[in-house]
Amino acid sequence: MSLYPESLTNLIEQFQKLPTIGKKSAERLAMSIVDKDSKSVEDFSNALKEVKDKIHPCKICGNLTEDDICNICKDVSRDETTICVIEDVRNLIAIEKSSVYHGRYHILGGLISPSDNVKAEDLSIDKLLERIDKEGIKEIILAISSTIEGETTSLFLAHLLENKDVRVSKIASGIPVGSNLEYFDQLTLERALEDRREI
Amino acid sequence: MSLYPESLTNLIEQFQKLPTIGKKSAERLAMSIVDKDSKSVEDFSNALKEVKDKIHPCKICGNLTEDDICNICKDVSRDETTICVIEDVRNLIAIEKSSVYHGRYHILGGLISPSDNVKAEDLSIDKLLERIDKEGIKEIILAISSTIEGETTSLFLAHLLENKDVRVSKIASGIPVGSNLEYFDQLTLERALEDRREI
Ligand SMILES: [Zn+2]
Ligand SMILES: [Zn+2]
Repeated sequence: MSLYPESLTNLIEQFQKLPTIGKKSAERLAMSIVDKDSKSVEDFSNALKEVKDKIHPCKICGNLTEDDICNICKDVSRDETTICVIEDVRNLIAIEKSSVYHGRYHILGGLISPSDNVKAEDLSIDKLLERIDKEGIKEIILAISSTIEGETTSLFLAHLLENKDVRVSKIASGIPVGSNLEYFDQLTLERALEDRREI
Repeated sequence: MSLYPESLTNLIEQFQKLPTIGKKSAERLAMSIVDKDSKSVEDFSNALKEVKDKIHPCKICGNLTEDDICNICKDVSRDETTICVIEDVRNLIAIEKSSVYHGRYHILGGLISPSDNVKAEDLSIDKLLERIDKEGIKEIILAISSTIEGETTSLFLAHLLENKDVRVSKIASGIPVGSNLEYFDQLTLERALEDRREI
């Protein structure tokens, strides 16, 4: 016999499908729904559906938007000649939070990965090349993770962009600010030394 | 300008209203909803509403159920003459998970708390007294937290039950199994010594 009524067991399972939510957290969250008033639960229920109904990728850069074009692509105060190339929306959010970048973005929608059978043509690369020509882009910044897949993708793009009249740079690898370098692997140290800058 | 489209900002706020979910977790959870297929999100959305529509308290004990009477009250294989008195459904679940108890329950729906203005008449106490007479209850186990409010409530109930022909006991206070006693306060140690049992 289940400890919970059927609908509650089902809700616990739904919560467990979310990232980082284990069985215990799922039980706690589902119980908190039981305690809420009907209006609050309906608002939550509708908010889930609405996100799925309204949100889609920006036709230009791939960022999330409720319109055709996202807020960043619409923003005329941003530098229109620089594109920062990233893997996904999560990376866009991380860079926007830092407030250091004021150009446009281009979301690849993945990284080249032979093991996961993701090829270059599965990513939004043709569109990037098209944008460079059409939008008169002068600089491309590759802000891609330095995993094997990330490095492969960066290298592929750098090679491809050699034919275009754009400056191409890559974000620096190194030791995170505030971290002790003893905790990082040899490759990270090597990169940090390579990417050293004069002060 | 918000980092996220409106509907996504709203969903992040909805997730943040859940217990133990901070801003960062809420963002991660909301982004995972964007990544899900429509069917999965609809299932989740419906599961929330269904819990609210279907679940209510058992007419006898206050446990959660989709029917009039909960599975525990319906279960004829359980001891019908013993009632374990608890604060809320979370405590019932905890005891059921331990599989050590096979009687019935009675959920008070709170604890006496002058500071929160919760009085004895706000709790399901009349119903408990009624059950004792009507169901021929022989034993009452008070399984109530040993907080100030819990102790006050236990004391109040113990006093009230003196007039009834039932055995009344209280779960033991002490050091949790597997814990080092040095980490517990003086009052807990005092109780652990008082409630000592011969071996
Ligand atoms: Zn865009
Ligand atoms: Zn019941």
